[in-house]
Amino acid sequence: MTDHVDALQSGVVYGEDIEVGRRYRLGSYTITERELVDFAGLWDPQGFHVDKDVAEAGAYEGLIASGLHTLAVYQRLAVLDVFSGWSVIAGRRLREVRFLRPVRPGDTLTGTVLIQDVAFDDRDRALVTTAAELTDAHARPVLSVDVEAYVRARPPQIS
Amino acid sequence: MTDHVDALQSGVVYGEDIEVGRRYRLGSYTITERELVDFAGLWDPQGFHVDKDVAEAGAYEGLIASGLHTLAVYQRLAVLDVFSGWSVIAGRRLREVRFLRPVRPGDTLTGTVLIQDVAFDDRDRALVTTAAELTDAHARPVLSVDVEAYVRARPPQIS
Repeated sequence: MTDHVDALQSGVVYGEDIEVGRRYRLGSYTITERELVDFAGLWDPQGFHVDKDVAEAGAYEGLIASGLHTLAVYQRLAVLDVFSGWSVIAGRRLREVRFLRPVRPGDTLTGTVLIQDVAFDDRDRALVTTAAELTDAHARPVLSVDVEAYVRARPPQIS
Repeated sequence: MTDHVDALQSGVVYGEDIEVGRRYRLGSYTITERELVDFAGLWDPQGFHVDKDVAEAGAYEGLIASGLHTLAVYQRLAVLDVFSGWSVIAGRRLREVRFLRPVRPGDTLTGTVLIQDVAFDDRDRALVTTAAELTDAHARPVLSVDVEAYVRARPPQIS
């Protein structure tokens, strides 16, 4: 606990400060139709993401967001509310990303991030595993994602 | 083979037309520093993606792209060269995404998509599993991603 307070005071969270089992609640983000179409136009230009007529004739009877866009919303919320305070080295792996329900224009997404594991190795770092979920405004899950990222161990104190 | 030619002539590739074991070569895409920073500013605003000074003091001694950005480049290339001709219903899952090497400003990425499996279910669709890899200009792998997506089965012929 003292470690955690110290970390917060110094403004940096190291591997030692990250508590397995802790769950963070994320902020929320609304995907507009304009953003949905623009994002997909650049990164995932499939008809059901970018063309309203194609989408209305398709399986979901309307535009749906690229799964990558939903994943980007997760990452933005998780960085702003959780990871930005951590001494992150880099992400290693998305262990699994599941697209559970279509996301539509106007949907407001929020979610949680659970710390599943913190494993130190011999390179002064910890592999931190998180399990996250995004839900829509009706609390229905739309995305789940399990991430592994490297976070620095606390540097030795100079005394 | 006849099926495949028919599908190409009709402009739509159904599950029956997708050959397990076939490998597609993707086009290429260059990530500029401006785009790298802008993308991360929106979707992954961690210092080592958006702030040159922070990045230069960090583990990679310079800006590196968000893994999500690299994944977006994969999706763009794969849609343009492979999936846009398919009768895709939606993606279901990214089974695994591995960030194998940092991507830096100016890196030109290309890659391949391998068809691993096509499994029809009883809802007139096939779950298509692909294994893709992106490489940098030195042919070093930077990303691997295994995707599962639903593709329509060929509709019954009206005779």
